[in-house]
Amino acid sequence: MSSVLVIGTVAHDTILTPTGEAPLVLGGSATYFSWAASYFTKVNLVGIVGGDFPQEHRQMFTDRGIDTTGLITKPNSKTMFWRGRYFDDMNQRETLEFSPNVLTEFDPQLPAEYRKVPYVFLANTHPKLQLQVLEQAEKPELVVADTMDHWINNTREDLLQLLPKLDGLVLNDGEAKLLTGEQNLIRAGEKVREMGPSFVIVKKGEHGSYLVTKDGPFLLPGFPTKTVVDPTGAGDSFAGGMMGYLASDTSGAPGSLRRAIAYGSIIASVTVEGFGLSRLRQANRAEINHRLEEYRSMLAF
Amino acid sequence: MSSVLVIGTVAHDTILTPTGEAPLVLGGSATYFSWAASYFTKVNLVGIVGGDFPQEHRQMFTDRGIDTTGLITKPNSKTMFWRGRYFDDMNQRETLEFSPNVLTEFDPQLPAEYRKVPYVFLANTHPKLQLQVLEQAEKPELVVADTMDHWINNTREDLLQLLPKLDGLVLNDGEAKLLTGEQNLIRAGEKVREMGPSFVIVKKGEHGSYLVTKDGPFLLPGFPTKTVVDPTGAGDSFAGGMMGYLASDTSGAPGSLRRAIAYGSIIASVTVEGFGLSRLRQANRAEINHRLEEYRSMLAF
Repeated sequence: MSSVLVIGTVAHDTILTPTGEAPLVLGGSATYFSWAASYFTKVNLVGIVGGDFPQEHRQMFTDRGIDTTGLITKPNSKTMFWRGRYFDDMNQRETLEFSPNVLTEFDPQLPAEYRKVPYVFLANTHPKLQLQVLEQAEKPELVVADTMDHWINNTREDLLQLLPKLDGLVLNDGEAKLLTGEQNLIRAGEKVREMGPSFVIVKKGEHGSYLVTKDGPFLLPGFPTKTVVDPTGAGDSFAGGMMGYLASDTSGAPGSLRRAIAYGSIIASVTVEGFGLSRLRQANRAEINHRLEEYRSMLAF
Repeated sequence: MSSVLVIGTVAHDTILTPTGEAPLVLGGSATYFSWAASYFTKVNLVGIVGGDFPQEHRQMFTDRGIDTTGLITKPNSKTMFWRGRYFDDMNQRETLEFSPNVLTEFDPQLPAEYRKVPYVFLANTHPKLQLQVLEQAEKPELVVADTMDHWINNTREDLLQLLPKLDGLVLNDGEAKLLTGEQNLIRAGEKVREMGPSFVIVKKGEHGSYLVTKDGPFLLPGFPTKTVVDPTGAGDSFAGGMMGYLASDTSGAPGSLRRAIAYGSIIASVTVEGFGLSRLRQANRAEINHRLEEYRSMLAF
């Protein structure tokens, strides 16, 4: 079993949905990722927070076995804040307020003991920052990154320099089309792969995801979630479940990446059943495994 | 092996896509359905055309083993005509011209030898017409219908009377939400089922489809089609492949409905690779079976 390193955001979120509101809950990409991955393996978190970040949240990570040596605190700054609202169609949301705050001071440096962590996930941020972290990692076994439309539109050249250094890239369907100019989703995924990463995972929200490798595609519909309370963190939970499983599976058995994606999808389906991290915190490995078996039976023909 | 009865449209289509145009090709729901189903079993077609319908098209059906006894010709009328254009995102289209023509005279009567056909598919039309045909069928084993937003909006009461008389209903995701007022797709499918049909198949275009039964859902992603030339007829081909396979599978083995949906998805993936019926006409059962095995391997984890 190997450890996973994640660099991403740790934030305070205020989330509005058609049925409720969650004010100032713990959020951010590295938060969801770490919690999801922690069901499978040890996690080393790299991020930055302000003086307002509660000690109890840091303790929560530590109690969970998530190493926060790499979580820097800037006492005179405030933690990143996001406030957003989901519409009746919960696939759609709008950002009401975004204050990067301490994030503007982020100059990620890996603690010495983090540099040998073999599984590295570069959550969605400026590709230059992703590259800066990657250059500090010593011979990682597997490097996967996330990105988004903002970086594709505004830092395209930096992103194109990062892509050949990755084993895998995770992005959503609209981003794959934006990056490649290709409307056909399967071709778009293949064109992203030609830009460098050995594999590409295209996420399609409730419609699931697909994996593009040199051996052809793997298709996975979304787990059918009847109770979607809050979609925040679904994508980061997916990535965390996937990377956590990969790091835990040292069997070398074929198909581990496919199983990892299925686990990621299951973890995401748990996350969205509650506000913020609340539902994911209550899950356990038996429940996750049970849901994976249900999933298999829903897909068999 | 049982026969399949389909009532639907036989039409002339002029199709514009970003890459080409197909003027006045043979189309209509019953046309695509029949051709797709004919890969598996005998088909009895019920429809209506005008005096302009070429003899060679009727001959094409006959040569294929599709019984056109139920295809009425009104010599003084014109065949239904549709002209439409697909956008760069081929999931989107607009109707440029629609002339029902002879369709307004349609008063479907089943020929005597059609009345005992055990598998009945009521393609998308006014629910009163669907009911009228159904009442002429003698003890059908399986009745499945299609519908669309127009009938849900304008003939809701008639549709609600039809639903309890069906074994299965096929509709797309937007229509399932429209019919039930439910935004969550899985719940929407379940609510449609509570309206009468034993099973509901919700189609999601390129994202595949899912089946709702009393035993829970079956999830199937779309077959990844790299070459989409013309999406016209995909839904009707799906239904034809599904019903054709069901009628051909008299083994009583469990999971036949799931396999039928997978075959439907494969047949639809063939149809969209050419304009109109052109690509589907060139397929053969070996190619379809091969694609089904590819499909399975893309889904395994």
